[in-house]
Amino acid sequence: MTEVNASIDFVPGFRVAGVAAGLKKNDALDMTLIVSDTPCVAAGVFTTNYVKAAPVLFDMEVLQGNKDHIRAVTINTKCANACTGDQGLVNAREMARQTAEKIGCGLDEVLVMSTGVIGSQLPMEKIGHGIDLAAGSLGSDWAVAAAGIMTTDTRPKMAAVAVTASNGKTYHIAGIAKGAGMIAPNMATMLSVIVTDVTLPIDTAKGLLQSASETTFNRVVVDGDMSTNDTLLLLANGVSGVTLQSPDDFTAFHEALAAVCRKLAQDIVRDGEGVTKFITLTVRGAASPEVAHQIANTIATSPLVKTAFFGNDANWGRIVAAAGRAGVPIDPDLVRLWIAPGETEDFNLGSLLLFTNGMPSGYGEEQATAIFKESSVSILLDLGMGLGSATVWTCDLSHDYVSINGDYRS
Amino acid sequence: MTEVNASIDFVPGFRVAGVAAGLKKNDALDMTLIVSDTPCVAAGVFTTNYVKAAPVLFDMEVLQGNKDHIRAVTINTKCANACTGDQGLVNAREMARQTAEKIGCGLDEVLVMSTGVIGSQLPMEKIGHGIDLAAGSLGSDWAVAAAGIMTTDTRPKMAAVAVTASNGKTYHIAGIAKGAGMIAPNMATMLSVIVTDVTLPIDTAKGLLQSASETTFNRVVVDGDMSTNDTLLLLANGVSGVTLQSPDDFTAFHEALAAVCRKLAQDIVRDGEGVTKFITLTVRGAASPEVAHQIANTIATSPLVKTAFFGNDANWGRIVAAAGRAGVPIDPDLVRLWIAPGETEDFNLGSLLLFTNGMPSGYGEEQATAIFKESSVSILLDLGMGLGSATVWTCDLSHDYVSINGDYRS
Repeated sequence: MTEVNASIDFVPGFRVAGVAAGLKKNDALDMTLIVSDTPCVAAGVFTTNYVKAAPVLFDMEVLQGNKDHIRAVTINTKCANACTGDQGLVNAREMARQTAEKIGCGLDEVLVMSTGVIGSQLPMEKIGHGIDLAAGSLGSDWAVAAAGIMTTDTRPKMAAVAVTASNGKTYHIAGIAKGAGMIAPNMATMLSVIVTDVTLPIDTAKGLLQSASETTFNRVVVDGDMSTNDTLLLLANGVSGVTLQSPDDFTAFHEALAAVCRKLAQDIVRDGEGVTKFITLTVRGAASPEVAHQIANTIATSPLVKTAFFGNDANWGRIVAAAGRAGVPIDPDLVRLWIAPGETEDFNLGSLLLFTNGMPSGYGEEQATAIFKESSVSILLDLGMGLGSATVWTCDLSHDYVSINGDYRS
Repeated sequence: MTEVNASIDFVPGFRVAGVAAGLKKNDALDMTLIVSDTPCVAAGVFTTNYVKAAPVLFDMEVLQGNKDHIRAVTINTKCANACTGDQGLVNAREMARQTAEKIGCGLDEVLVMSTGVIGSQLPMEKIGHGIDLAAGSLGSDWAVAAAGIMTTDTRPKMAAVAVTASNGKTYHIAGIAKGAGMIAPNMATMLSVIVTDVTLPIDTAKGLLQSASETTFNRVVVDGDMSTNDTLLLLANGVSGVTLQSPDDFTAFHEALAAVCRKLAQDIVRDGEGVTKFITLTVRGAASPEVAHQIANTIATSPLVKTAFFGNDANWGRIVAAAGRAGVPIDPDLVRLWIAPGETEDFNLGSLLLFTNGMPSGYGEEQATAIFKESSVSILLDLGMGLGSATVWTCDLSHDYVSINGDYRS
């Protein structure tokens, strides 16, 4: 397993800034700029919501025409620039244009991201001010850059790895992300930018990014809502001088990229709105991995399951009932359900069998409650019907989730 | 529109009882018995959850063999008799057997229902005691019978209509229901028993019941969770002497049955766990009614939409975003969204257009907030793509929902 750092020291050839443009009150950081000194191979994975925000539509168009000389990403919080009509697209383009002008590159070399409230136009004066500030303060402070994209996140999210290639040279992969709410089973990225100084072939960048996100960002569930703005970008500037060539090099890159994505994805769940408990939920014994994933998502989005997590209640009945309504046949007599403290995939040691043969196992309620009182709990549901399995990371549904989302716009 | 009463005076030939069998604490009512003096034509609609409780499996089997001489329904709360294995089925059968013995009918003439916590065996001594008490106190107090099936419901739910047939004679349709949580888009009945003194043809009873439930019980959404125990039963004893013959008579019966179901279904939403706001949500302009229903369900189960309702926040962006992730193509530029106070399908008078042409309409935020502060709000989403429409009734997601479901088993 690749060792992932929770901070980012330096990625050769990339400079970043996080600034307070006045979008948020009290001089809070609200805009981030990421610039590569040289052109990057780039790829993006975007929300599958039919209602796509203007920056998503803009980036998709840019990447259609330019996959190998992207220079910068400008990100603002507080306003999602979604459901903003033609003016929204004009503003997204203007945000890119002003960035391009400041750093000296073409309009089609800049990508943009927005997050925040739906339905307001970007305050372009503040955006312009933020771009000025950011372009003038570029450096290597990734913590500030990660803080600049936070909304209801309580802490910045960073991940970094260093990889030694087969030729002995080292390259880096580093990423920042924001999450907190509206995290859906499919494409649950919210906003994330991953940069690397390896040289990536144009044709494989998107495939590698999609593959890495499939088992990471696509496996986290906070509330099942998919945003209009979800975007995951990958920029590779090749400054390390390392070019992926052997199959082993590609495998190592893919693993390292997935490790960065997994760390960021899990951090999004851990810092989900109102989250008090981190759940690692594995469904196995399904007819296929897709079926396992479908059942895991149904369980992970069930309000009754999530409120039981919040109440430290080992209410396996709600988990089994949610599995039964996922739209795929299961046989309760074949189902077995275990729980274990912490994050584990080993359900032999210290785990507790709760349900088997269509009924409770005769476990001790005290022991079950003790496990559920942990801040991190692992659950294994074996359907006994096949070899498909899937793991998702999810969380509880708390009073604070309701408070945060009842008051969000005020 | 048929006038529906919120109380039940008397349904000829039916006697009922609600008793305290000791399943709940403090002598609270916890069991209900409904008896017909003469054999009934009967039909049932059951949960489509693959994990079905023992009483559901038992009733499905009974109705397989006996559709025209059902005599009684025995219902207990506090224990769902779900995920209870073979012993659960033995207990369901024993509950029916004891009822049959007390009222003097065959074992295959009694249906049973259970609601409550999953995974515990029925306390058969208390169940037997309850059946004794109930059989000894049968009468016409339907309010007590309706109270006897409540769990987290805060009030009993009853509905009754009198219908004059084409021959001038009158017959009755009356029903009780319980709901509160675990209310899903599909088959959101929880438990409900509807009785009538009309004579129903054996072959049409199930079709009529399914059809009536489709636009009523199947259109309410509290939290999107579907229970292991959902059951809707219809018993027709024919005591009125009215036999449905003309198409008009069937139409009148169907309308009256649907009116009773609608009243009970809406009451379930109004009394949903922690509910502070009743939402009538209509999606129209879809490619088909099924598509409209799918989009309405996605909106109605969205935690972000539901918490915004709780916060009196006219956050139409979340509604549009939820519509966009329902899995069917929509074009945001064609979408229009209105809100109106109260329960209405008339969006001309007093309604407010929030979203059109892919962006906010320029409405006044104060006016929108004033509407959202009402305890009952209607929402109309027009997709502009076709003629399909569907209405669902739903509610907000509040702190109390989290409290109730975080603490349910303790």
